[in-house]
Amino acid sequence: MRPAIERLQGSLIREIANAGMGRADVLAFWFGESDEVTPELIRRAAIESLERGETFYSQNLGLPELRAALADYTSALHPAVDAGRVVVTSGGVSGLMLASQALVDAGDEVVVVTPVWPNLAAQPAIMGATVRSVPLTPADGAWTLNMDRLLAAVTPRTRMLVVNAPNNPTGWTLSRPEQQRLLDHCRATGTWLLADEVYERLYFEPAGNACAPSFLDIAAPDDRLVVAHSFSKSFLMTGWRLGWLVVPATLVDALGKLIEFNTSCASVFTQRAALAALAHRDEITPRIVAHLKDCRDTLLPLLAAIPGVQVAVPRGGMYAFFRLPGFDDSVTLARRLVAEAGLGLAPGTAFAPEAAGWLRWCFAAKDTSRLVDGVRRLRDWLLTQAAAPPPR
Amino acid sequence: MRPAIERLQGSLIREIANAGMGRADVLAFWFGESDEVTPELIRRAAIESLERGETFYSQNLGLPELRAALADYTSALHPAVDAGRVVVTSGGVSGLMLASQALVDAGDEVVVVTPVWPNLAAQPAIMGATVRSVPLTPADGAWTLNMDRLLAAVTPRTRMLVVNAPNNPTGWTLSRPEQQRLLDHCRATGTWLLADEVYERLYFEPAGNACAPSFLDIAAPDDRLVVAHSFSKSFLMTGWRLGWLVVPATLVDALGKLIEFNTSCASVFTQRAALAALAHRDEITPRIVAHLKDCRDTLLPLLAAIPGVQVAVPRGGMYAFFRLPGFDDSVTLARRLVAEAGLGLAPGTAFAPEAAGWLRWCFAAKDTSRLVDGVRRLRDWLLTQAAAPPPR
Repeated sequence: MRPAIERLQGSLIREIANAGMGRADVLAFWFGESDEVTPELIRRAAIESLERGETFYSQNLGLPELRAALADYTSALHPAVDAGRVVVTSGGVSGLMLASQALVDAGDEVVVVTPVWPNLAAQPAIMGATVRSVPLTPADGAWTLNMDRLLAAVTPRTRMLVVNAPNNPTGWTLSRPEQQRLLDHCRATGTWLLADEVYERLYFEPAGNACAPSFLDIAAPDDRLVVAHSFSKSFLMTGWRLGWLVVPATLVDALGKLIEFNTSCASVFTQRAALAALAHRDEITPRIVAHLKDCRDTLLPLLAAIPGVQVAVPRGGMYAFFRLPGFDDSVTLARRLVAEAGLGLAPGTAFAPEAAGWLRWCFAAKDTSRLVDGVRRLRDWLLTQAAAPPPR
Repeated sequence: MRPAIERLQGSLIREIANAGMGRADVLAFWFGESDEVTPELIRRAAIESLERGETFYSQNLGLPELRAALADYTSALHPAVDAGRVVVTSGGVSGLMLASQALVDAGDEVVVVTPVWPNLAAQPAIMGATVRSVPLTPADGAWTLNMDRLLAAVTPRTRMLVVNAPNNPTGWTLSRPEQQRLLDHCRATGTWLLADEVYERLYFEPAGNACAPSFLDIAAPDDRLVVAHSFSKSFLMTGWRLGWLVVPATLVDALGKLIEFNTSCASVFTQRAALAALAHRDEITPRIVAHLKDCRDTLLPLLAAIPGVQVAVPRGGMYAFFRLPGFDDSVTLARRLVAEAGLGLAPGTAFAPEAAGWLRWCFAAKDTSRLVDGVRRLRDWLLTQAAAPPPR
């Protein structure tokens, strides 16, 4: 096996989840996924496609009608994008991996803003790149970007800069002026910008387009910019494995080849489901976002009321990222919470060493009372710790 | 973009198909896919899963019950394989790509036996490997292996040897003694053997297990051997994108990580369909194979009767690979056949430079009369060529 692959950290989220999966007494908030089933009308479209017998190979880049629908969708939220620049992928993660395959040679230097979903740093490492991390820094529970530090790290030797905002796990978002500075800088250094914007719709601040700021709002069509999207979060379609990229036209043929050599195509019945999702987007996504805001506004005050906790209200995404006083090792803490409190959270260490003391709580819960129950379990467990400190 | 990606030849099969797709007057045999819809009972299992709401993330390595069912399936055809060595992938092609990611560093040397499905050579090239081809040689229409030439090419510097048998496009198969020599040689050189055996069930020679010879029959569980399989061909599930690998136990954790970082998991409803397929394998696959044999035995005598043609009856797979006298450029020929004869075939150039004069005909046709009609179009077109040679 390649040393680069052996060195890759497996998912610590999975590790915690494996310890508690199948236990009915564990309230699980570890994965970045709602516990709500995909809306019926979306499932129905896939079922009808299967009944029609749409079980054959299809276009590498996606069904032309889906690419057109995604271009319409994107163009309604951002400046107009041509369908020819839209590439359908087998999940957001697949699109992100294809971007690394297209752009990153072994030995190249890639910069990633962390803490971040570990896949984003692992992908260029799989391609043999040297991956450098520029950490956000926490202040009053909120993680913030030191722009000067980031700009200093991105040089003409930097092949690709990877940014995920709204951010998983911290909820950090980029402001428009920050995006402009990053884009200008990457133009100057010739660096590709890989923007994971899968949480753009899960944004709770006032915005004319009901979206977090996107690089698509300010970039030219031929900028070295790849924007990754997914049906998972905004349409409750995690298990379907469907996403898309918006890329410069010059990259489309290469991505078509890479899709052929990686996955060939996405299933037609899955793409039909996506077409139904887009056709009903005005019913589906605003309802999901309004409910997620309820979830956030249920969980965050309860977490913030825990004595000594560090936490900030996230502007986007579906995660509370917080730190409990006196616990520096989040993997041990997360394991103990599963075993002793019946509470399933993701350890900060999964997202970056600098987040070793933090925990991620996915608040996408169909029933907000699950969140209330979860905090109660956490508080009760903390009380037992205060009463009788555990052996170290 | 990376030069290695720019240099990748796009699929010449797709190029020909794009020229004719959507034209109702073209009889298409260009893709490696039957024109028969996935059996109803398989589709029904996916539909019921969707109705139950199985739309969430699942295990990276596949549903435990599917891994167990695949181990049973494999163990019934070959020596027993433990479910822990079975890895579910998002299509056979995805499994093959994961193998390259796990094993091939940039600069490594990889040997591929050609002509072959172009994806197999492209995948290590994407990882930055130096890919060397060892060509089969045609004799009386049949492509055969020069074993000494292959063994000389695989040295201790060879990181991986890629073999696809039964072979797409030539129908070449490996004998048991040849497999033993290759395995022994790779053991001696420390070379990983990547065996694409997706056509093992599409085998028309007498065999106790109704399978082509497989490396699984002779290898030890810890040999450096990765065997790739797919639901596409044996279960008429091309568009579902589901496959599996059988690997040494030491590779399983790495593949779990790589699946997380490439596609996360296969859809649960797709895996439910696969479970139904395996549960009904004794009804489904033998019927498919018997029908494919009918197809082969319809097409091959008609092709062989064309004056001057070079063609051999394939022992396995679903392709006739043949050469017409007087045509050296298969891409031009395939294009002309689409435009002038309404016949869609794949050009040999897609599979290797040494097959530049050859054409691939996928004979997986639900109705064998389509094959008869296809040959009639080819013969009629050839007559017009004889009467009036085209401008060169």
